[in-house]
Amino acid sequence: MKEKLYCVKIGGNIINASDKLESFLSQFSQIEGNKILIHGGGKIATQIGTQLGIESQYTNGRRITDDQTIDLVTMVYGGLINKKITATLQKFHCNAMGLCGADGNIIPAVKRPVKDVDFGWVGDVDATQINIDFLTQILNANITPVFAPLTHDQKGHILNTNADTIAASLATALSDIYDVRLIYCFEKKGILLDIENENSVIPTITEDDFKQLHKSGALFEGIIPKLENAFDAIHNGVHEVLIGHADQINKNTTDQTEGTLIIA
Amino acid sequence: MKEKLYCVKIGGNIINASDKLESFLSQFSQIEGNKILIHGGGKIATQIGTQLGIESQYTNGRRITDDQTIDLVTMVYGGLINKKITATLQKFHCNAMGLCGADGNIIPAVKRPVKDVDFGWVGDVDATQINIDFLTQILNANITPVFAPLTHDQKGHILNTNADTIAASLATALSDIYDVRLIYCFEKKGILLDIENENSVIPTITEDDFKQLHKSGALFEGIIPKLENAFDAIHNGVHEVLIGHADQINKNTTDQTEGTLIIA
Repeated sequence: MKEKLYCVKIGGNIINASDKLESFLSQFSQIEGNKILIHGGGKIATQIGTQLGIESQYTNGRRITDDQTIDLVTMVYGGLINKKITATLQKFHCNAMGLCGADGNIIPAVKRPVKDVDFGWVGDVDATQINIDFLTQILNANITPVFAPLTHDQKGHILNTNADTIAASLATALSDIYDVRLIYCFEKKGILLDIENENSVIPTITEDDFKQLHKSGALFEGIIPKLENAFDAIHNGVHEVLIGHADQINKNTTDQTEGTLIIA
Repeated sequence: MKEKLYCVKIGGNIINASDKLESFLSQFSQIEGNKILIHGGGKIATQIGTQLGIESQYTNGRRITDDQTIDLVTMVYGGLINKKITATLQKFHCNAMGLCGADGNIIPAVKRPVKDVDFGWVGDVDATQINIDFLTQILNANITPVFAPLTHDQKGHILNTNADTIAASLATALSDIYDVRLIYCFEKKGILLDIENENSVIPTITEDDFKQLHKSGALFEGIIPKLENAFDAIHNGVHEVLIGHADQINKNTTDQTEGTLIIA
């Protein structure tokens, strides 16, 4: 039987609030067994960018990672946020190790090819290319990897990669070895039928449900790529995907899950 | 017989010049066998700090690491510099892993006690507390650890620690297991008898020589703590300490060393 592994993604809005982040990390540190944390960016990169005179560039409404922006997110995601989370988990006696995809060549990526839009230093990940051997060694040493949403092109450049995608890719790559539950934690209790009603959580979503909800326009902004990542992961070996509130992480690592369960 | 390990510290002035850094990293990547890189800070933290309105604080002429400054160096040392070096080494086929002392709890430290001066978030390291087990596992997996000059207090705070001290502490801690050569790389060819003459390198310095040179005022600024770290390391098990130019790293990892050799 495969050992259990929890791949937990914590979203940007929790990272913006240091008390909420601390409370989440305290709960996360109590998860027993194998676990990986993947964190998003939060607003702090934008705030520091503004102070440094680095403005977000857009082409056709799509955000571009130019030279200044990749340096900014390397500092903020890979340094400030990643190392603060690591030090906080150490305080809670969780032996964390802050990493990005360049470290140990764990997550090689390909700079997104220029078609209609040149996205700049953005990396696309192929889960089959993830180096799971060393990652498994880290987990076997009872160390908890904490990933910043950064990869690299193996040509000397750090690349900006969506944290949800990294979480799904790591979960997929490790599902050969582990029984993986992928948990997306954010500031809502799950996927809501009515965005105004926090208690309208949809307990389970199948792919058919998703197609129907998507078509009807009922899904709130930002959740669609998360669900696409979730179904991708399920199709590629991940056992379970849960979407829930950061405060529910303790329950969502038991059999009494709250939030929305994604099923094949 | 113990395996050889090279502990290499690269100083701030090389980090400031991206072409020099790239050339050094290309050479460093060719060192065969076990190696660790420790990097300094460079001027970029000061530059970004100035842009962010963070001014260096001094008390009695001693630099203080206040709340803003520790965030700044966590970003710049732990993120920007550390991950750029890691990605560059990956380009040169050296499987590097960027770390700080909080990662895997490798370098726990103690916040410097307040006596005459409150140095703020500065960490003092005790080499006997370094967690060498996991570090040895990383080296055995043919991975090259790259350390930013940051430690942690195990209470949730990142601490600022001198990179020379980290290099000496890691070298000392690992000398039980490895035959360690500690190499300080900077922008001079070694310790110079005449600061104006690049060719006046002192080939070897014993502790008696050091005391005499120190007394005579012949040593240039900044080199005294480096030499003190070097003798500390030698007294605590490190086999050899070399101080030399970054360009000499290839020679300084052979028997035909250049630069200044520190001997007991």
